[in-house]
Amino acid sequence: MTPIEELTTPALLVDRAALAHNLTTMSGALPGARLRPHVKAHKSTALARMQQDQGHPGLTCATIREMEGLARAGLGDDLLLANETADPRQTARLGALVEAGARVTIAVDSHETLAAAITGGLQEVLIDVNVGLPRCGCSPEQAGPLADAARRAGLRVRGVMGYEGHAVGVIDRTDRATLCQESMEMLRRAHEDVGGGILSAGGTGTFDCNDVATEIQAGSYLLMDTAYAALDLGFREALTVLATVVSVSAEFAVADCGLKALGMDHGNPTIDEAAVWFCSDEHLTFAPNARMKPGDRLRVRPAHVDPTVAYHERLYLTEGDQVLERLDIDLRGW
Amino acid sequence: MTPIEELTTPALLVDRAALAHNLTTMSGALPGARLRPHVKAHKSTALARMQQDQGHPGLTCATIREMEGLARAGLGDDLLLANETADPRQTARLGALVEAGARVTIAVDSHETLAAAITGGLQEVLIDVNVGLPRCGCSPEQAGPLADAARRAGLRVRGVMGYEGHAVGVIDRTDRATLCQESMEMLRRAHEDVGGGILSAGGTGTFDCNDVATEIQAGSYLLMDTAYAALDLGFREALTVLATVVSVSAEFAVADCGLKALGMDHGNPTIDEAAVWFCSDEHLTFAPNARMKPGDRLRVRPAHVDPTVAYHERLYLTEGDQVLERLDIDLRGW
Repeated sequence: MTPIEELTTPALLVDRAALAHNLTTMSGALPGARLRPHVKAHKSTALARMQQDQGHPGLTCATIREMEGLARAGLGDDLLLANETADPRQTARLGALVEAGARVTIAVDSHETLAAAITGGLQEVLIDVNVGLPRCGCSPEQAGPLADAARRAGLRVRGVMGYEGHAVGVIDRTDRATLCQESMEMLRRAHEDVGGGILSAGGTGTFDCNDVATEIQAGSYLLMDTAYAALDLGFREALTVLATVVSVSAEFAVADCGLKALGMDHGNPTIDEAAVWFCSDEHLTFAPNARMKPGDRLRVRPAHVDPTVAYHERLYLTEGDQVLERLDIDLRGW
Repeated sequence: MTPIEELTTPALLVDRAALAHNLTTMSGALPGARLRPHVKAHKSTALARMQQDQGHPGLTCATIREMEGLARAGLGDDLLLANETADPRQTARLGALVEAGARVTIAVDSHETLAAAITGGLQEVLIDVNVGLPRCGCSPEQAGPLADAARRAGLRVRGVMGYEGHAVGVIDRTDRATLCQESMEMLRRAHEDVGGGILSAGGTGTFDCNDVATEIQAGSYLLMDTAYAALDLGFREALTVLATVVSVSAEFAVADCGLKALGMDHGNPTIDEAAVWFCSDEHLTFAPNARMKPGDRLRVRPAHVDPTVAYHERLYLTEGDQVLERLDIDLRGW
């Protein structure tokens, strides 16, 4: 075992006990096919395998690269691209995975994306329905006719998908549940017209209040971040960024964990026992409560796990001060 | 030549003519050693080579990985790590570059970082001075004694460094120049005590108003972004992110260029002829002025070049609708 002390910083650390807690807590709440873990949050086949080993047969992806990596790693029993593409060159990459034996389902929300799925050689789709988040998805009224068109073209329509992304981050649990319920009512209406066994929706923020979806596409629960921690969902922050102090002044210190080691769309990261001032490309300026010196190590808690992980090549599974294992973040890019 | 149309999106495109304009404009203003191009903005040895080919002998880096990559690519004539490290394991990586024939200078701002430089086998330093940005750098008063300590330890002190990072983004040119001047007055005072031939400072925002620094560490000028474009410096936005529309609704469209393909610390990107609503991990929701359809291509202008490039594996040098060359972004990570 390698001591954490020997790692080059910035480095992503994942606490083994917190990870195990998150895996079992989620699998307890949503066993088997009730959870379709979303791999975009961690982009690591090693972590996806741990999720599947909990008994969840299917996985969710946001990119074709993620789909390809999981299929190559032997995790392709039931892969869902919960995203659209209208480019037949891209759907052909997915068609090649089907050829090689993977089960691939893709979201479609228009005749163009349906046509690309067909051209690419795909056989199974979910009809993506807009349930309130202004992003992808057709209207509930368009879902049935699109499903009919897909079936006429010989595709299997497995059901509907509708992501209540505008609800998952709402702090107040009652408000969040209400918003989720309204969204799922739209998804249910669409499903009546579409048919199929699947209503795929949800995320970490609604994992315990979405009882309409047959499967929840949660990803952040595994590693967590300060944004989701604020929702008090019962998952632990397993991910931190290990940093080293490089400079100290009378009023502040500077660590080597800048905005290229962190996703910044949810704002600054958090450091216990310190006030974070700002991030530059490769620097984090903060005011520690107790005096620090150059060379000291600290843990930085990211505000948003997904874009943080996407900057790193690997993460380290740790226990106490020891590295247990190095896991590649091998699903990055497109 | 490959048509741009065939690229997988999101993809970084660099317009050849704009790049050439930026290269020659900067070299005209700051010829030879007056410019020490900062590679952190693009993290590509291919682009660093183009900069050095303009007659600039030295290059600036923010990470050890950048230093290693440039040295391995034969661009190690005069490399500056404009950053501190107090970890002898890290300075040993730089010492190995010196052993292999590269010229390596490192910034130091404390006895701890000086000690790490010595332990790592480095021979040349700049004394990093805090000139107003609350980040690295000793006080001007500490600079002389630190230089003395370095010389007593047998190191060559090449001069001082002081980054006026709080000035480079100020929109008003007069205010920016005033702030820059105040900072450089501090650097000059420190330099009187330190000696050496180099006063290294500056960035793209102060390239034409910093006349105290003997060398300017500008990087963003090469590719540019919307934040620097607002300063009207005479450089062109060479970098765009090519994206594909994946979904269209009555009021908005969605493209496949999300916040994992963009640096978000300067806010949302810009799309000509459209209003950007928000970015998700792999989606960009926007309202186009004219109706679009799934499969349409568009160009997204990032708000901050550095963290945008750091998410991508490669960029494509383009002319019109053709790809001239694929360049690897090979200096990522740490």
